[in-house]
Amino acid sequence: MKILIINGPNLNLLGRREPEIYGSETMESCITRLSATYPVEYFQSNSEGAIIDRIHAAGYDNNYVGIILNAGAYTHTSLAIADAIAAITLPVIEIHISNIWGRREQERHKSLIAPHCRGVIAGFGLDSYRLAIEALLHLK
Amino acid sequence: MKILIINGPNLNLLGRREPEIYGSETMESCITRLSATYPVEYFQSNSEGAIIDRIHAAGYDNNYVGIILNAGAYTHTSLAIADAIAAITLPVIEIHISNIWGRREQERHKSLIAPHCRGVIAGFGLDSYRLAIEALLHLK
Amino acid sequence: MKILIINGPNLNLLGRREPEIYGSETMESCITRLSATYPVEYFQSNSEGAIIDRIHAAGYDNNYVGIILNAGAYTHTSLAIADAIAAITLPVIEIHISNIWGRREQERHKSLIAPHCRGVIAGFGLDSYRLAIEALLHLK
Amino acid sequence: MKILIINGPNLNLLGRREPEIYGSETMESCITRLSATYPVEYFQSNSEGAIIDRIHAAGYDNNYVGIILNAGAYTHTSLAIADAIAAITLPVIEIHISNIWGRREQERHKSLIAPHCRGVIAGFGLDSYRLAIEALLHLK
Amino acid sequence: MKILIINGPNLNLLGRREPEIYGSETMESCITRLSATYPVEYFQSNSEGAIIDRIHAAGYDNNYVGIILNAGAYTHTSLAIADAIAAITLPVIEIHISNIWGRREQERHKSLIAPHCRGVIAGFGLDSYRLAIEALLHLK
Amino acid sequence: MKILIINGPNLNLLGRREPEIYGSETMESCITRLSATYPVEYFQSNSEGAIIDRIHAAGYDNNYVGIILNAGAYTHTSLAIADAIAAITLPVIEIHISNIWGRREQERHKSLIAPHCRGVIAGFGLDSYRLAIEALLHLK
Amino acid sequence: MKILIINGPNLNLLGRREPEIYGSETMESCITRLSATYPVEYFQSNSEGAIIDRIHAAGYDNNYVGIILNAGAYTHTSLAIADAIAAITLPVIEIHISNIWGRREQERHKSLIAPHCRGVIAGFGLDSYRLAIEALLHLK
Amino acid sequence: MKILIINGPNLNLLGRREPEIYGSETMESCITRLSATYPVEYFQSNSEGAIIDRIHAAGYDNNYVGIILNAGAYTHTSLAIADAIAAITLPVIEIHISNIWGRREQERHKSLIAPHCRGVIAGFGLDSYRLAIEALLHLK
Amino acid sequence: MKILIINGPNLNLLGRREPEIYGSETMESCITRLSATYPVEYFQSNSEGAIIDRIHAAGYDNNYVGIILNAGAYTHTSLAIADAIAAITLPVIEIHISNIWGRREQERHKSLIAPHCRGVIAGFGLDSYRLAIEALLHLK
Amino acid sequence: MKILIINGPNLNLLGRREPEIYGSETMESCITRLSATYPVEYFQSNSEGAIIDRIHAAGYDNNYVGIILNAGAYTHTSLAIADAIAAITLPVIEIHISNIWGRREQERHKSLIAPHCRGVIAGFGLDSYRLAIEALLHLK
Amino acid sequence: MKILIINGPNLNLLGRREPEIYGSETMESCITRLSATYPVEYFQSNSEGAIIDRIHAAGYDNNYVGIILNAGAYTHTSLAIADAIAAITLPVIEIHISNIWGRREQERHKSLIAPHCRGVIAGFGLDSYRLAIEALLHLK
Amino acid sequence: MKILIINGPNLNLLGRREPEIYGSETMESCITRLSATYPVEYFQSNSEGAIIDRIHAAGYDNNYVGIILNAGAYTHTSLAIADAIAAITLPVIEIHISNIWGRREQERHKSLIAPHCRGVIAGFGLDSYRLAIEALLHLK
Repeated sequence: MKILIINGPNLNLLGRREPEIYGSETMESCITRLSATYPVEYFQSNSEGAIIDRIHAAGYDNNYVGIILNAGAYTHTSLAIADAIAAITLPVIEIHISNIWGRREQERHKSLIAPHCRGVIAGFGLDSYRLAIEALLHLK
Repeated sequence: MKILIINGPNLNLLGRREPEIYGSETMESCITRLSATYPVEYFQSNSEGAIIDRIHAAGYDNNYVGIILNAGAYTHTSLAIADAIAAITLPVIEIHISNIWGRREQERHKSLIAPHCRGVIAGFGLDSYRLAIEALLHLK
Repeated sequence: MKILIINGPNLNLLGRREPEIYGSETMESCITRLSATYPVEYFQSNSEGAIIDRIHAAGYDNNYVGIILNAGAYTHTSLAIADAIAAITLPVIEIHISNIWGRREQERHKSLIAPHCRGVIAGFGLDSYRLAIEALLHLK
Repeated sequence: MKILIINGPNLNLLGRREPEIYGSETMESCITRLSATYPVEYFQSNSEGAIIDRIHAAGYDNNYVGIILNAGAYTHTSLAIADAIAAITLPVIEIHISNIWGRREQERHKSLIAPHCRGVIAGFGLDSYRLAIEALLHLK
Repeated sequence: MKILIINGPNLNLLGRREPEIYGSETMESCITRLSATYPVEYFQSNSEGAIIDRIHAAGYDNNYVGIILNAGAYTHTSLAIADAIAAITLPVIEIHISNIWGRREQERHKSLIAPHCRGVIAGFGLDSYRLAIEALLHLK
Repeated sequence: MKILIINGPNLNLLGRREPEIYGSETMESCITRLSATYPVEYFQSNSEGAIIDRIHAAGYDNNYVGIILNAGAYTHTSLAIADAIAAITLPVIEIHISNIWGRREQERHKSLIAPHCRGVIAGFGLDSYRLAIEALLHLK
Repeated sequence: MKILIINGPNLNLLGRREPEIYGSETMESCITRLSATYPVEYFQSNSEGAIIDRIHAAGYDNNYVGIILNAGAYTHTSLAIADAIAAITLPVIEIHISNIWGRREQERHKSLIAPHCRGVIAGFGLDSYRLAIEALLHLK
Repeated sequence: MKILIINGPNLNLLGRREPEIYGSETMESCITRLSATYPVEYFQSNSEGAIIDRIHAAGYDNNYVGIILNAGAYTHTSLAIADAIAAITLPVIEIHISNIWGRREQERHKSLIAPHCRGVIAGFGLDSYRLAIEALLHLK
Repeated sequence: MKILIINGPNLNLLGRREPEIYGSETMESCITRLSATYPVEYFQSNSEGAIIDRIHAAGYDNNYVGIILNAGAYTHTSLAIADAIAAITLPVIEIHISNIWGRREQERHKSLIAPHCRGVIAGFGLDSYRLAIEALLHLK
Repeated sequence: MKILIINGPNLNLLGRREPEIYGSETMESCITRLSATYPVEYFQSNSEGAIIDRIHAAGYDNNYVGIILNAGAYTHTSLAIADAIAAITLPVIEIHISNIWGRREQERHKSLIAPHCRGVIAGFGLDSYRLAIEALLHLK
Repeated sequence: MKILIINGPNLNLLGRREPEIYGSETMESCITRLSATYPVEYFQSNSEGAIIDRIHAAGYDNNYVGIILNAGAYTHTSLAIADAIAAITLPVIEIHISNIWGRREQERHKSLIAPHCRGVIAGFGLDSYRLAIEALLHLK
Repeated sequence: MKILIINGPNLNLLGRREPEIYGSETMESCITRLSATYPVEYFQSNSEGAIIDRIHAAGYDNNYVGIILNAGAYTHTSLAIADAIAAITLPVIEIHISNIWGRREQERHKSLIAPHCRGVIAGFGLDSYRLAIEALLHLK
């Protein structure tokens, strides 16, 4: 039984993009570290449609414990991803590397997908991924 | 002359997704039924860009009577699809399976594409597709 | 078993009022045409109260399949008609001749009655009435 | 000296309409019960204009202690009824059977007439009428 | 050729209702005075539907120069009256006795009918009626 | 079985504070009068936390029929008191001495606690307390 | 005793500017025509400060019956002109050549000065000036 | 070095209050369980002021690793608690038992304190406390 | 006759809290300095209820010239403190150490208590207290 | 080193304009009184541009301690004056004679210039000018 | 045929005002540089009225190719300048030195004049002027 | 060193789509013309994800001077593209063929990407591309 980590747009640049906000560790390094302890599978795409496709595939595949989703900017604009989460019964946990409510722009404060996720973890840098796995493994 | 039915994100799950809202008939079964009477062609994608590409292709192809578009959640977020509809002269009819105004979330009540469509049909389950074909065939 | 068509304010002027928007066929001609195929009954009033009275009467009379309601401008202002629809179990279908979302004024975009209707059909000229009858006869 | 009870749109259906919200006692039964103790007079109409006419008539007739007004949905949409209340000196008490602030729709939370009434009583089922009579008889 | 003056809800109480705002002259006295000079016809109703009926009747009768409409509170709530004005070609002038923009309540500041009228005259007491007649007779 | 009356901030000044709005009778005098007829218990605090504590205590004590709560300004700002009401099954009735909707400030028009109370009584001066007791004793 | 007509920004272009909206008569011609009947004095400026200065000067000069003010775009943006009107006791009448509520832009619908004027006349072309003079001469 | 857990209003009722939302385990049981593994200290109050006092005390005491704060309804209304968090350098983690963005009321969606916290964890029942401790111990 | 200085939440940390905004002088030092010249009395609390209690006590005690109130974050959230100010006739002056309108967060720009205070002084660091005393001693 | 007092629109009428709000002392008398103690220079204009010119002139002249600015209604509408303040390093203090937050109109509550000023003093009548001088002389 | 460059409020301080935003080159130096290549004429004023006067003068003078307008803060507040642009047929190009949408304040994001200009160029420092000239010379 | 021109959704239809707004020249013809003078590279996609991918690729490739981005409707809806721009240091210039602020729909007036771009050029037809290249080559 695997844990699917889905990263959305621009998260392929982690470690290179605005390191003062997002840190300098790459996602690859993070996944390697997590894989030592947990059965994680990683998927990243900048395409809204591809993320929906991946959520569907996992949702109708019996090999997953759940999905950890960092939807990046689609968090705030994608009702279609929100619908994809609502359309499956597999639990989805929303995470963010930074504290989105501490950002200046109002449009970064509202998550369209949060109402459809089991829970939200935000602000702990790449440790947010580990915490989300922990949360997923203890869901009731 | 064909009628193009375009379904947007998550509608590939029809029959499996939240059947208490969307019913348990699959879209494949619906298309089969409609094909007995009408010359329908079916396209589904979870990608906004692919939907726009398909609208363009039909719009500049002389073999279509019109498009029946259930844009799913993109109904509420995609100005780009709205622009694609405005950019062609082929008539487009917006449909929804459920009554979108009866939903709890405010952001599901507004359609960005409706102003550019010829008309809207919503709330009649899969029968909405048949009604839209009927509407299309009688447009003046 | 009859189908009740209710037209709200200013729809008595159909054919005479702004024909570039509403067309030049009168409602009388439309009803005559529909009556050849369907058992329709027609009621028009400019009074919100009279429309509510008529909805009540049909709602507690076992001779109707349902109501097709073009509430005109009351669509956007009458919570009382919305309540009347909610107060009966007879299905009500909201229709409009023109595409109300294509209109310039914001206050014409929101329907107060839509959440209480089974479905909505808008934008097909007088053919909207025929489509609504079709929808009503196929409701599940 | 009589107490005038005015009920607005759809309240003629009390006991029949959505009994899980409004209870199953009819208004007729309620009036009969109240009449045993208090000199009540009852008026119901689905027409905004007729309600205004009745408020005027009572306001310029010296035989009334006051008006108990359940304006139904007109509570939220009728500035004209609000003006009618402001135009007379007879005290008017606004009542509601259900707790209007507990309802889901935002547009049901605001009363246009409350600012012009002496007081408001809401949420006590048909007992709201008795409480309003009690309030009226003790006004200072 | 007559001039039709239409007064809306609560204006039957002019002279008796809040005289510190509306003055103490009755509308009857005002009409009598105006009739000495101009061919005026007067209609008052508290019913939105009856006002619409009257606008329609005048609009399709060749004996009127135009309509002077004091819609009272319906000014702010009636899209249906706005539609009635838009549905005829006879010129309509909106008037108010008091300065509606000087009132405390925000909902009294916006007129739904003004966009469909030829012009607006407000704030001059009963003299607003005379000014509107003057305006009507000089329309180009 | 007692009835608990809870008064919130500034209501200890009743009779001394703005008597043109709140009257000149003190709350002590009012409680004395009510105690002659009903088994009332009285609690007042200017502290949001103390009011919550008192609601909890009554909610888990089998000696109360219900709570009559005049939360003063906390009516408009305290989600925490709203939660306290939702957290108990004892019925709570919201009351106000004055008509809060007649006040000039918009922020005084919305009650955060009303959705969680059984009903609301406002505008009858200190008689609001008696009416609320009456309402409480007749709740179904 | 003179009547002061003040025209605000861009009204010096009357007759030349967008004649399909504002007509092709110049203000000079209009003033000449009005002067034949009424003792008018004319002032135009594109400067908010100069308009305020002129209002002050007239307000503290006993030779004026009142001011007729077409503040142009300052109608919608100048609280300072509104204050100038409030600061004098001389009556001021707001006028507009076109029907400002019929314009597409929301920011053209609200007048900041209207609450401080005696009345408003709008939509009658240059005849609005004559009507305002008539109104001024009959103010009570 | 201890970890301070602060619970805000109504959280003393955990296990008794709306168990379908908040679960049936009490906070006492949860703290006992956590204490087996982590050096936690627990504080609960229904008073905004007392919570601020406790945050200050911990903030200027060198014996704490950080604060885990479930501010309950004060999350949405207390700028003063937000200021208290901003006024100390000790890290504070905001947690919630339920998914606050899944709640119906808009006013429950916005956290005033989130911008000042290091991170947010919500929706995992009482396991949210364990996850927050884990997060706190791994903060960089 | 004394001057009462009331400081609200988090102001006990002055000199320690965010000194780049609030300076490094403590309130104790400030009070000592002011006491050399003026008869000041100082009260600080983090509790909304305690602040209300203190305002009441001073308001009904003849030994005070007035109150200087720095309500901290309660400035923006406490209608109850606003009511306490309105409930006494003793003048209250609102002060702030920093310029609250220069802050980034919109919710810090609006003061709920300002409408009930005699005046406001903000932005002058601890000198704001001295200026407020000066203002109080010269009130007319 | 002089202190420049700038008064904006309509403040030339002080003592004559609405004395119940602004008092009956003229600004000339106030300046004379202040000049006995402080080196003040006075400038008044009803023109936004002239005020900006004067701010610039002072800002690049080394003979001023700072500016005390009562911008009148431009406080609420002039981003250009706000920019002028931001464009100089000379300190500017915003003052108002009356308590602007106690005014009925919402548009009088927001100052566009406050974020760019060092501090704000409002509500103390003409004594606001003296207090601002005091504030200016003690700025750090 | 000349090109008129109009600069609005505070732009006379270019080179001296907030150079980290606006650069340290003066406008004079910029104009000199541009004049070597293009037939530019330069006008600057802090007065809204003077800018309108200048736009009118150029609009009715056949010697101009067009106007390049940097209206400074009037961009966001002046409907009167917007009207002046609409009142002439000479093309006007709106420019800004900085990227106005990158600024923190919401009120700096909306341009009232943009809808009436041919195009907008912003964010390129003083090079914006050269680009606007280039744009003007290539307009179709 | 190349200049990358990225065109977003529906811009593949240039020359065919609504020529009265967008002109009848195709983008291919425009690119050919520009290539004669500048080293441009062209990319068009209707897919948000593909545009992000292309921005990333250019951003981490040392062969580009900058990007000229006409994001079409994604301008108004894509925070993800805005993030992609923020994630690279290569300068990006936002352009539009038409004047987006002159369009009727409010949702077309706000650009989500503008705050992250160096500058904006809009309204000059296909010449906007040439102007943006000019701007890019002169950036400091």
